[in-house]
Amino acid sequence: MKIGVIGTGITKFGELWDKSLRDLLAEAQLKSIEDSKISPKDIEMIFTGNMCADALSGQLHIGAMASENLRINVPSTRIESACASGAVALRQGLQAIESGAAKIVQVNGVEKMTDVSTEQVTTALMGAGDEEVEGFQGATFPALYALMARAYMHEFGLTREQLSAVSVKSHKHGSMNPIAQFQKEITVDDVANSAMVSDPLTLLDCSPITDGAASIILASESVAKKLNPEAVWIAGSQQATDTLALSARDSLTEIKATRIAADSAFKQAGISAKDVHLAEVHDCFSIAELLAIEGLGLAKKGEAGKHAAAGYHYFDSKIPINTCGGLKSCGHPIGATGVKQAVEVVHQLQQKAGKRQVKKAEVGVTQNVGGTGATVVVNVFKR
Amino acid sequence: MKIGVIGTGITKFGELWDKSLRDLLAEAQLKSIEDSKISPKDIEMIFTGNMCADALSGQLHIGAMASENLRINVPSTRIESACASGAVALRQGLQAIESGAAKIVQVNGVEKMTDVSTEQVTTALMGAGDEEVEGFQGATFPALYALMARAYMHEFGLTREQLSAVSVKSHKHGSMNPIAQFQKEITVDDVANSAMVSDPLTLLDCSPITDGAASIILASESVAKKLNPEAVWIAGSQQATDTLALSARDSLTEIKATRIAADSAFKQAGISAKDVHLAEVHDCFSIAELLAIEGLGLAKKGEAGKHAAAGYHYFDSKIPINTCGGLKSCGHPIGATGVKQAVEVVHQLQQKAGKRQVKKAEVGVTQNVGGTGATVVVNVFKR
Repeated sequence: MKIGVIGTGITKFGELWDKSLRDLLAEAQLKSIEDSKISPKDIEMIFTGNMCADALSGQLHIGAMASENLRINVPSTRIESACASGAVALRQGLQAIESGAAKIVQVNGVEKMTDVSTEQVTTALMGAGDEEVEGFQGATFPALYALMARAYMHEFGLTREQLSAVSVKSHKHGSMNPIAQFQKEITVDDVANSAMVSDPLTLLDCSPITDGAASIILASESVAKKLNPEAVWIAGSQQATDTLALSARDSLTEIKATRIAADSAFKQAGISAKDVHLAEVHDCFSIAELLAIEGLGLAKKGEAGKHAAAGYHYFDSKIPINTCGGLKSCGHPIGATGVKQAVEVVHQLQQKAGKRQVKKAEVGVTQNVGGTGATVVVNVFKR
Repeated sequence: MKIGVIGTGITKFGELWDKSLRDLLAEAQLKSIEDSKISPKDIEMIFTGNMCADALSGQLHIGAMASENLRINVPSTRIESACASGAVALRQGLQAIESGAAKIVQVNGVEKMTDVSTEQVTTALMGAGDEEVEGFQGATFPALYALMARAYMHEFGLTREQLSAVSVKSHKHGSMNPIAQFQKEITVDDVANSAMVSDPLTLLDCSPITDGAASIILASESVAKKLNPEAVWIAGSQQATDTLALSARDSLTEIKATRIAADSAFKQAGISAKDVHLAEVHDCFSIAELLAIEGLGLAKKGEAGKHAAAGYHYFDSKIPINTCGGLKSCGHPIGATGVKQAVEVVHQLQQKAGKRQVKKAEVGVTQNVGGTGATVVVNVFKR
């Protein structure tokens, strides 16, 4: 596979009181079109990742909204795979080009989360788990990831300080990203001393509630070469699934779908984990980042916490992770996250990431998770 | 394009109090696998159309549910394009095979609608329209289609009797379909005298609230030929979009997206409207069936009502329409409808439609609509 990213667009991430779902989507869409130097009429198909607009805005059918925003009548579809909606939308865009049905495709991700109460958001997000098993019992996502964190601590001796190092690094990166929701540095003590959400996860272990949208334009190899000499190439893209309920899994300390998707995406791209220069991974909670790093093979099982504490994951260190600030500091507008990860890796590979630029950035990976690991997408980008 | 349907599965449609969302989905999935004489492990990718499970069951992430039901870890994605979710899922299945990523794909549609109040369903369905414009003003879908019916009556002189003939024919077909929600014949007087829902649409102009699921197995040409000598071929599949809000359209008496999708699907399949032996169209309301027939070019603009009253659309007449009973009489489990339409056409083309079998059935068409026409998918099936 060799499909080019010829342009990107992204909104500010945060509590954007003056912007609606449609405003956010349209802004990202128009920015990616402008960045690609194409016209809306050049777009032959659109895929848009969104998780919760039904519950949070009463709006479904966002595919039609996306094409209406561009005043075009092309096939335009909303993709929902919980928190992996953005990356799955990207995969559908790739598949459309590979099928020969389109040469230029727009992929968007959007979520408008702050028009309702935190309780409504928490309830809506539980739709990513197994409603009959987990939701019915009153579980929330912090609770489910807390179970994973506790099991991991027990099995591998992960410490509070190691876990805190993840969020400290994320906020450092966020402080260098102008679109990030939080641009303030924090300390390991801040993480440990912040309000307990679900033991052992504190407030600063958790990603926030965020409004935002991101967009990329994909093109077939020949079209991309013609339109953009700096096009970044997607060389591998794979998706795997697992049980909705955490209780039905073989292990609490591994996200199996990450391993399955990563193994096949790396194979497709002709790389191995040691070739990866940077990765954007799904740190909805600090523990999730460690599980992602291990699932991608960037650390041995049980080692990621030590690497985090040793500072390996800063933008100027051994294995830069979440240089945008991650879901924790850049923010987590659910459906936008998978597309935002792609935008960050593309900017890094084009040496356009500003203060947080990774020096050697030729191979980048994204890992986007739905639920507690029931859907995972791994994409491989090359310069 | 030539992709085969090698198996189908469908549940009973109706008020299925003893079946959950997962039960319905699993039943259709397993039936299509059994019908195809394959094993779950042969399925390489899954797409599932669903509109309202978030609002009606608190469950998102149905892609992962579908693969979990089969105990496999393949890419499995939920597609949402309002009431066209099923047919758009089918299109993604076709695209996956055309891209070379999979040779055997399962496509499902499911909706569990009767666990909540009618008011909750009506509100959830408004997500298919433009929430900021239509939902905010208190519009419901019967109201929006009533506007279209009134405009059509004004423009083309459609009579109450002509409109009623649509539902009478649907119930006749439903009476011959063992899975239909309503298996009782009705008269034109019954339609006119039933409760007014939104003038001029009465209760018997409207499709019901339904639980149900449908599933098909798609295979690449070579695999389909090997696995099923009776495989039905999908020769064309196209999708078009239009504005979410009815008020933003050029015309109230035409669904433009049907015409765009039909023109290109027919071209792709190398057919014209006169080659079509039967069609399953999206009759969420009686007026919608007339608009669909005209959009597909099966009647001239303004003529479909006369054809309905003249009995052209019965299974044993000139242009059989909705032989399964349509959304009106077979029922309308939203996400399942687009897949159910495919199941009915496949059965007709295989001469397996029982009492309602169309004699000459070699080319069949499905037309599935989202909202008031903001998404339309047209598929062409050949024997």
